[in-house]
Amino acid sequence: MDYKSYQENLLRYLLYIPKKDLKNTISRIHPEDVLDALRLYEGDKKKILLKIPEEVMVDIIDQAEDEEKYELLSLMPEKNQKKIIEEMSSDELTDLLGSISNEEANRIIYNMDINDAEEIRELLSYESDTAGGIMATEFIAIREEMTVADTLKYLQKEAPNAETAYYLYVLNDEEKLRGIVPLRDLVIRNFDVVIKDIMNENVIKIPWDMDQEEVGNIFEKYGFLSMPVVDNSEKMLGIITADDIFEIMKEEYTEDMYLLAGLDEDEKIERTIGESVKNRLPWLFVNLLTAILASITVSLFESTISRVVALATFMPIVAGMGGNAGTQTLTLIVRGIAMGELEVENTKKILLKEISIGLLNGLAIGFAIGIISFIWEKNIVFGIVIATSMILNMLIAAISGFSIPILLKKLNIDPALASSVFVTTMTDVLGFFFFLGLASIFIEFL
Amino acid sequence: MDYKSYQENLLRYLLYIPKKDLKNTISRIHPEDVLDALRLYEGDKKKILLKIPEEVMVDIIDQAEDEEKYELLSLMPEKNQKKIIEEMSSDELTDLLGSISNEEANRIIYNMDINDAEEIRELLSYESDTAGGIMATEFIAIREEMTVADTLKYLQKEAPNAETAYYLYVLNDEEKLRGIVPLRDLVIRNFDVVIKDIMNENVIKIPWDMDQEEVGNIFEKYGFLSMPVVDNSEKMLGIITADDIFEIMKEEYTEDMYLLAGLDEDEKIERTIGESVKNRLPWLFVNLLTAILASITVSLFESTISRVVALATFMPIVAGMGGNAGTQTLTLIVRGIAMGELEVENTKKILLKEISIGLLNGLAIGFAIGIISFIWEKNIVFGIVIATSMILNMLIAAISGFSIPILLKKLNIDPALASSVFVTTMTDVLGFFFFLGLASIFIEFL
Repeated sequence: MDYKSYQENLLRYLLYIPKKDLKNTISRIHPEDVLDALRLYEGDKKKILLKIPEEVMVDIIDQAEDEEKYELLSLMPEKNQKKIIEEMSSDELTDLLGSISNEEANRIIYNMDINDAEEIRELLSYESDTAGGIMATEFIAIREEMTVADTLKYLQKEAPNAETAYYLYVLNDEEKLRGIVPLRDLVIRNFDVVIKDIMNENVIKIPWDMDQEEVGNIFEKYGFLSMPVVDNSEKMLGIITADDIFEIMKEEYTEDMYLLAGLDEDEKIERTIGESVKNRLPWLFVNLLTAILASITVSLFESTISRVVALATFMPIVAGMGGNAGTQTLTLIVRGIAMGELEVENTKKILLKEISIGLLNGLAIGFAIGIISFIWEKNIVFGIVIATSMILNMLIAAISGFSIPILLKKLNIDPALASSVFVTTMTDVLGFFFFLGLASIFIEFL
Repeated sequence: MDYKSYQENLLRYLLYIPKKDLKNTISRIHPEDVLDALRLYEGDKKKILLKIPEEVMVDIIDQAEDEEKYELLSLMPEKNQKKIIEEMSSDELTDLLGSISNEEANRIIYNMDINDAEEIRELLSYESDTAGGIMATEFIAIREEMTVADTLKYLQKEAPNAETAYYLYVLNDEEKLRGIVPLRDLVIRNFDVVIKDIMNENVIKIPWDMDQEEVGNIFEKYGFLSMPVVDNSEKMLGIITADDIFEIMKEEYTEDMYLLAGLDEDEKIERTIGESVKNRLPWLFVNLLTAILASITVSLFESTISRVVALATFMPIVAGMGGNAGTQTLTLIVRGIAMGELEVENTKKILLKEISIGLLNGLAIGFAIGIISFIWEKNIVFGIVIATSMILNMLIAAISGFSIPILLKKLNIDPALASSVFVTTMTDVLGFFFFLGLASIFIEFL
């Protein structure tokens, strides 16, 4: 049975099973699958939601996309809403509150337990794409003087509420992080061993203000399942878990790819036509402006073209090939910045490398197109003009493909944003300028 | 202190500390950091490696990139090599063996314990980018009739060797997967509870032949830290853990992005100039061929251009804008396929949507450029010709941006591969053809 038919069967099941029977069976269905079935249903979702026990609704809303969370929550009766909010993990609740108006968010926070409310207000104060904005505050904190037996007893009480119980965090009186004990190390020890003797003091910590993309790189580098977030004084604030990182990696990557292609970061396959047009058209108009810039360049040489019409035929090759080579360099640099592979020390080396590659590729492609156009037009000067402008444009491609994303990064703008528009503007305008300019100079021989 | 200076200090430390002192302190340094320090060192790495205890070398080689693993291993003395191989986790050893020649791999396998060797041969038989190719075989298997106390005792023996001990897998006599017990649930139970009563029977399993990109999507969807891999008869074969998924996501993302830009999937910032030229030049030559195709289209209309040179000025706009719009659609579709959002049922709907968007964007951009060229050239027919060809080319962009990746996917070719070359060929050739063709028909009025 494929996933689609499974979903349809599940939806039918959820719709027609009596409430008391669902209560006994729903724990066997993954909340994400319930969510998918709900997404499929075009009728009144309340019919299903009111049958689902609150504690399961908590898991379902935890798993939902940011904008879906509030939608699902608001379908529940007022009194259940309060209970669900109480039970939700802090990072998911923060996402929910961040997706609705300040007014609605304040109303929800106002109805919360005063301590939870304070915690949530603090979480909401972090930028949403930094470590502070993605962490959860439900971690298991222990003391170094506790024994293994103490810890296990403590776990019986605390583990069910924690975001992850697979790492226990050893804090001192000032809540500073002193060490970590993996649960797996704990269960293989004697009961009377003291935490201090088994804790790992070499803890890699995430600063609260680290950008989420960098957080993703650190997880990928070290392969951790969760990592602690600390403030400037090493006080532990929360934890980030692997499942958050999967989402971040997907989000950051999709964003880079979309920005490079001139798509808005929240463009989606399921968008309506109107939304998509609204998202894409501004980019196309920016491109139109740059295309007009290229056309103005061409128009400067209309008298040259009218004398040698073959220039119009070969013109798109010089510009287009520059654009292709520029996109290669650009993509490599944008991805290198995103993966943290490009650092201050190696930029100069990489620029020189890209220029060399541009030169070599320019020589190869220039030679090829020089020969082809010589055969086509039976004019050696024509071949030399196009080959020379191809080499020059490939150099421009390398330099702009390298420096535009780096410049944007320095200005604290996402290097993927608009990079390709700038690079192709450079290669179009200068490609036409070199080719038609050289042709004008040597017009006597063409 | 930044990471770079930390690395340099660490390298100095590793170089000059006596062997017996390093033995006591190295467990406090993350193997990934040791690896980074080793990468920094341009001298004879043996000087450091021979000081590192074998069990730490195992972790370092586990963390290394595929090609680095054997390089590091072969610097160790023969007898240490054997011990390291014995201790390495099966998925990392498979990666190591997959990165060297069959001859060398066979020599290593021949020297292994016969049971381990058989297991490794089986792992090597799976395609490297499928679930079977990335899984590890070191998981903790328990029986449903065991009590919590039995299980904890068993864990004390087995946990240190397992890839992850955070989920325990309940198998029956035929090694079929019956349920899962998270370690966190185990530690909060009474000692005499039987596994059968606490295990979760609703286990989501990964089939052995699932493509790694899809495996990544499933992890992201459900947010698991590890998942079991089963064969066709539900027999459990191994597990995949979150850290493998981080790497896969990074690898697959980078690959898609590179292929779309015409970069080879293993292009890297640190490549040599020669390697990069060898990787990029073939793509540029493919692009050159398609650019020539576009030029041939233009050359068919040279007599038209010679009569109205302004056509050469506006020509790149029609083709270029089509390319931009095509790239938008293409990127959305390639990403949609990769994220598993594009299914058979919704393709027709999405095609119609993209065509509508193409039409609306075409009308908007066509109208704008029509007005601009009318003002520029003071000729209404010129404006109508360019507007009409813009609308037509935007439709071509939508159709080809949608159907080329889908077609490649159906042919079992990576949809990112060469998609953009095909799409821009379509928009270039047809863009020129529409614009210059219409201009030829209405040449009397231009």
